[in-house]
Amino acid sequence: MENPGYGSGGYEGLHHQGDDDDDEMVDIAGATLDFSSTDDVPPLSSGEYDEHSSSSSSRAAGMNGIGHTKLVDPLEDPLPGVGTYEDFNTIDWVREKSKDRDRHREITNKSRESTVALLHSVSDAFSGWLLMLLVGLMAGALAGGIDIAAHWMTDLKEGVCLNGFWFNHEHCCWTSNETTFKERDRCPQWKSWAELIAGTSEGPFAYILNYLMYIIWALLFSFLAVTLVRAFAPYACGSGIPEIKTILSGFIIRGYLGKWTLIIKTITLVLAVSSGLSLGKEGPLVHVACCCANILCHLFTKYRKNEAKRREVLSAAAAVGVSVAFGAPIGGVLFSLEEVSYYFPLKTLWRSFFAALVAAFTLRSINPFGNSRLVLFYVEFHAPWHLVELAPFILLGIFGGLWGALFIKANIAWCRLRKTTRLGHYPVIEVLVVTAATALMAFPNSYTRMSGAELISELFNDCSLLDSSQLCGYKQPANTSDTGLDSLADRPAGEGLYTALWQLALALIFKILITVITFGMKVPSGLFIPSMAVGAIAGRLLGVGMEQLAYYNHDWLIFRGWCSPGADCITPGLYAMVGAAACLGGVTRMTVSLVVIMFELTGGLEYIVPLMAATMTSKWVADAFGREGIYEAHIRLNGYPFLEAKEEFQHSSLAVDVMRPRRGDPALAVLTQDGMTVGEVETLVESTHFSGFPVVVSPESQRLVGFVLRRDLLISIDNARKRQDGIVSASKVVFTEHTPAQPPEAPPQLRLRNIMDLSPFTVTDHTPMDITVDIFRKLGLRQCLVTHNGRLLGIITKKDILKHMAQIANRDPDSILFN
Amino acid sequence: MENPGYGSGGYEGLHHQGDDDDDEMVDIAGATLDFSSTDDVPPLSSGEYDEHSSSSSSRAAGMNGIGHTKLVDPLEDPLPGVGTYEDFNTIDWVREKSKDRDRHREITNKSRESTVALLHSVSDAFSGWLLMLLVGLMAGALAGGIDIAAHWMTDLKEGVCLNGFWFNHEHCCWTSNETTFKERDRCPQWKSWAELIAGTSEGPFAYILNYLMYIIWALLFSFLAVTLVRAFAPYACGSGIPEIKTILSGFIIRGYLGKWTLIIKTITLVLAVSSGLSLGKEGPLVHVACCCANILCHLFTKYRKNEAKRREVLSAAAAVGVSVAFGAPIGGVLFSLEEVSYYFPLKTLWRSFFAALVAAFTLRSINPFGNSRLVLFYVEFHAPWHLVELAPFILLGIFGGLWGALFIKANIAWCRLRKTTRLGHYPVIEVLVVTAATALMAFPNSYTRMSGAELISELFNDCSLLDSSQLCGYKQPANTSDTGLDSLADRPAGEGLYTALWQLALALIFKILITVITFGMKVPSGLFIPSMAVGAIAGRLLGVGMEQLAYYNHDWLIFRGWCSPGADCITPGLYAMVGAAACLGGVTRMTVSLVVIMFELTGGLEYIVPLMAATMTSKWVADAFGREGIYEAHIRLNGYPFLEAKEEFQHSSLAVDVMRPRRGDPALAVLTQDGMTVGEVETLVESTHFSGFPVVVSPESQRLVGFVLRRDLLISIDNARKRQDGIVSASKVVFTEHTPAQPPEAPPQLRLRNIMDLSPFTVTDHTPMDITVDIFRKLGLRQCLVTHNGRLLGIITKKDILKHMAQIANRDPDSILFN
Repeated sequence: MENPGYGSGGYEGLHHQGDDDDDEMVDIAGATLDFSSTDDVPPLSSGEYDEHSSSSSSRAAGMNGIGHTKLVDPLEDPLPGVGTYEDFNTIDWVREKSKDRDRHREITNKSRESTVALLHSVSDAFSGWLLMLLVGLMAGALAGGIDIAAHWMTDLKEGVCLNGFWFNHEHCCWTSNETTFKERDRCPQWKSWAELIAGTSEGPFAYILNYLMYIIWALLFSFLAVTLVRAFAPYACGSGIPEIKTILSGFIIRGYLGKWTLIIKTITLVLAVSSGLSLGKEGPLVHVACCCANILCHLFTKYRKNEAKRREVLSAAAAVGVSVAFGAPIGGVLFSLEEVSYYFPLKTLWRSFFAALVAAFTLRSINPFGNSRLVLFYVEFHAPWHLVELAPFILLGIFGGLWGALFIKANIAWCRLRKTTRLGHYPVIEVLVVTAATALMAFPNSYTRMSGAELISELFNDCSLLDSSQLCGYKQPANTSDTGLDSLADRPAGEGLYTALWQLALALIFKILITVITFGMKVPSGLFIPSMAVGAIAGRLLGVGMEQLAYYNHDWLIFRGWCSPGADCITPGLYAMVGAAACLGGVTRMTVSLVVIMFELTGGLEYIVPLMAATMTSKWVADAFGREGIYEAHIRLNGYPFLEAKEEFQHSSLAVDVMRPRRGDPALAVLTQDGMTVGEVETLVESTHFSGFPVVVSPESQRLVGFVLRRDLLISIDNARKRQDGIVSASKVVFTEHTPAQPPEAPPQLRLRNIMDLSPFTVTDHTPMDITVDIFRKLGLRQCLVTHNGRLLGIITKKDILKHMAQIANRDPDSILFN
Repeated sequence: MENPGYGSGGYEGLHHQGDDDDDEMVDIAGATLDFSSTDDVPPLSSGEYDEHSSSSSSRAAGMNGIGHTKLVDPLEDPLPGVGTYEDFNTIDWVREKSKDRDRHREITNKSRESTVALLHSVSDAFSGWLLMLLVGLMAGALAGGIDIAAHWMTDLKEGVCLNGFWFNHEHCCWTSNETTFKERDRCPQWKSWAELIAGTSEGPFAYILNYLMYIIWALLFSFLAVTLVRAFAPYACGSGIPEIKTILSGFIIRGYLGKWTLIIKTITLVLAVSSGLSLGKEGPLVHVACCCANILCHLFTKYRKNEAKRREVLSAAAAVGVSVAFGAPIGGVLFSLEEVSYYFPLKTLWRSFFAALVAAFTLRSINPFGNSRLVLFYVEFHAPWHLVELAPFILLGIFGGLWGALFIKANIAWCRLRKTTRLGHYPVIEVLVVTAATALMAFPNSYTRMSGAELISELFNDCSLLDSSQLCGYKQPANTSDTGLDSLADRPAGEGLYTALWQLALALIFKILITVITFGMKVPSGLFIPSMAVGAIAGRLLGVGMEQLAYYNHDWLIFRGWCSPGADCITPGLYAMVGAAACLGGVTRMTVSLVVIMFELTGGLEYIVPLMAATMTSKWVADAFGREGIYEAHIRLNGYPFLEAKEEFQHSSLAVDVMRPRRGDPALAVLTQDGMTVGEVETLVESTHFSGFPVVVSPESQRLVGFVLRRDLLISIDNARKRQDGIVSASKVVFTEHTPAQPPEAPPQLRLRNIMDLSPFTVTDHTPMDITVDIFRKLGLRQCLVTHNGRLLGIITKKDILKHMAQIANRDPDSILFN
């Protein structure tokens, strides 16, 4: 998804505002975005937070809790606001983790004193597990609800159940006695709209009536979806994975995981999927699970108050999302590890696994597919594959890679167009037009009319003799039962299959085109299912082709020896599966997690090798066109400050080349440890917009003492002026440990050592940037000071690094928008 | 395993030598160990390495490659030895990774110049994959060979095949026509020793003869094993996982992964397993795979020359080891990630998975089990489990946790005894005594006579009606076929089963006791199988108990509703599996990887929940007694410098409390950037044994310029004295960028800026130690300098941190032996 404000012109304003070349400025970027219509995203005035903010408890504590002239001990009772973050800012992982360790240490020490404290310590230790259990239960239940609702509404586009309108097609016909195996989806209780309105299901009139009703429902659903999103939760659109990646890397987007986003995303996801648009619900389920986790975090102080700890829970929630989307808990955990997480300590791995399992089993006990299966696409293949088949599998990998690379390029180009031209000003009309076009073109072709998940399920399926699907329209061998041949043996294609192939080919082209336009609209939209559908169609086509080739040419060298007549040598369903993996891999550049998800669908280790071959090829081919996956591409498009952990920094620049101030710029704004007055500090802070200031021994020596954040400085001075007697502009600001002597008539000093970071990170000016980038990534730094021979020289922020990287890649360094 | 030198008294010497309280001294610890009898561990004189060392190519380049008076550019042609490590030292990850990035950058830049360079660049990029392929193939093949040989030799203890002595029992009877299902392991071609020697298989005489032969073979095998290990490769003993963990964390143990270790370990592993000792081959297979990887690394410059890159390959090899041990590639990768790896970038994850798959399929195509199964224990359960059963599963978890904690305490106590008393001086006798005791007690009981893997396999197995095993000695229902009841329904226990249960109970006690003594002897020995065997026996006993309880008490509240008469409600095999997981978890403290390995054995997601419940309980229970797993305990026992990545550092000390020099110690030994002569530097270096020296601007300012390693300094000065004209003791040593002016009559200056690390890591004295420890872990530092207000104050090395941690935990800080 894009940043939800693009329709209002807010982006452009923001863009220009970000143009001035200051280091680490805190322009509260979001404030210029047009979010004011939602209560999820409050006006971002300093010190005020919405209910989902990390400092809700600090606000609750209120200003009254602070004594008047008493100096505040930073560990015991920090000033409200000190140590919190503003919206659209990057957190300092080191500080957050250190805070949590302090908290933990305190609890452990107290636990020796009394039984109550001991119980508190134990409950604190287990709160993480309890939270995981709750996240799993809630996300599993929500996913079940979404599945059931989407099923019902998808069927509603085609007809209604007479026994009760709340039954979906399959459900409706369960109670029917007349259902035979072949016609299990036809029963008198289920009426198509034509039957209901005109009383007939035959003839062109009925067809047109059904067609019309299909389009009307689709438009209604998508209109509702886009309107709800725009009205109540602009953050609910898109897949959410790029933003979650950014949030997990330490960025703050208030309200992105709030309760309104959750409610609206859940509802509109159902609507969007039901409208028949070429999108899936799997990606957005990750967002839904993360919202659940974020909301549940508020039940536990440990997680509510600490941004780093909360991100551990969110990492696990991402695993939960994939686990319920595909019924693949191990794959989900690996997805979280490989794809979205930034910090993923091993403790989180185990907890994620637990949460993913709970969620998967919650979903299964809800049983939305009515078959007690854990997995979304249950496949069971019987025939082994042969080494020769690796060639077509690798071909599918190449196709997947090409599709992935082209899709990303096309989709990003389209999104950029939407952002920069008038196209983006009419999101509702855009959604309606795309829905209408999709419905118009999809209805006549049965493979596009069915939902993406159904299509994939059918394509993965291996044809048994009894299968009535068109895809299994093979010519029946005359005497199967007599010859005793394998009932799944390769057979010649019949009429039905040829029709199916043509329809599939058309569906392929249609899906490829429409998905590019659909992903990025202002409705919740996932990419997993559309990508997999494209790959599954291509794979099935190739599979049937191979099958027929082998059937008619048993004597060819490549088939000889393993594909005798009457044997089941080619499984077209397996080709579909390999194709789906290849295309999904090309788009997202997932590797291990993708293979493991697919493995969990089949449950057979044998098929891992084809999947792996295709995924590897697909990644290599796609990487040759550009190393970014779709999520990274969208992160870059939106200018989020995301420092990619996978790519090595290859340029040979040094820290001195990246740091600010640059040569010729004015000197770095610093505070001295005991030489400045309150007035001077205020002037310095107001004349700049740096988010923090180094403190040095003296301007001459430039020896570094510590680092003070702008926000903490402002809050503290403000507080001291109001509540501490005698603090005036002429008061000295003192950062030293011992109060320096001063003339007796001087005003009292303002001691601020407690808000100073005494252990700022430093690198020398000669440090290669690859090492510096490594430090930023691994430790989760927000800024780092640069010294030369022990003297402070400059500062490097995360934004500086991202700008530098953009410059090296010949991109606009000002495309990085946030701090 | 212990450090192989304990028998020679070398340990004690080392211990005292490590006693003096100097910071980061380079005592080449291993030099005092008695390795001189093996060619795998060469005498550790400076500059000389065995063929497996990282600098073999540097040595090949020779001293002749260096021009006489020409100053050497550090990037192009470093002095041989500069930038390499001595044995038993810790590597600097940052430097190694930076070196690799430089190399990569150079290749990328050159690739634009010519086609050859482009091809070189491509082949360089793919060399990692090729290496993985080779590692997978080699490790898979070796594991197959080990399996086959161990099978054959285990059977050799009981008898021999007349068709050819190289057939094992099962193989021998394959060709027999007389084999019925019930007696498939009895055939005329297979003769027990009594039959062969005395011509009879009945009566007490034959029994005693067989007994005797069994013991003789066992003694022969174990004698060969221990002798070979002692004679050729002392590093080949034990499981190897503690050492591999330490190596992966950045420690150097030359020869530990060399070709002699590989050859001897492979042979002696077969011997040790065949001797019937209570040990498994699964852990040592990880060591074998790592040896393969290390040896194959020498084919590729990229990996041969870079310690950090090589460790990426070793991480993958650990995954390969588990993959071939259990036939569980995904579990193997997670094992490597969770248990042994230190740095595990995502690129490695994907490659590990590839290598693990290759290895698993290589092993399967060798087909050592003769059943085309990928997994070691193939289990297929049919009955679902019920929620009530979680109670016994959690009970098994508690048992596993208790066993794990007690085993670790007992085993460590025993190993310490072995190390400190005369017991350790007679390793061969020890092995022979334990083997004799094991064989004596194991033979009469069929469950201890069979190999551990066979035992586990039988315990996991679910009884079908036709099963002839004693464990399936249920009373047959009179009319199974008539009533049409489930053929696997719960049945009352019969005579055979009661006998089996008694034997199992005895086997449990025997295994518990003997494993404590066995693990740590001077033969290759894994812990996976013995631990799993203990758990599987306990689980099976509980499972059968539950089954009988349910059979006779259908009407109890807890059974009502889900366990009606004639239903298959309890699966004792599942209990065995859960018990095995719990015990293995208690000993190793594995979590996710353990559950995934077990999941891969069954292939059914349903059984994950019991496994998870038991593993979680087991870990919590065991952690309550001590948070170390068996591998960490052995690492500590051996004093390796391993900085645990999983545990949070909880103490509230600051960097200033840990750094050297301590208050009252002599000042830190520093070099100045242009104020010292060669003679002064040499005096300073010789009067201390620090492994590196900070360089400051001047002794008065103490402003830090850089850091020089002792080894590099010595080599460079030595080289300059020999080859650079005019370098005498009075020559000034200069670390500055520009040569300072000096009187014309002064001797030429020695410029050493190229060996100085210009970007040493620094923290301030107020940095909390939890953050410092985090930095050390995440960046893989070897040392870090401490500053106060821009002035150099001291230094913290990895050893200082480990000593500090030992002190906090009330352990002897001098137990950390190496740098």
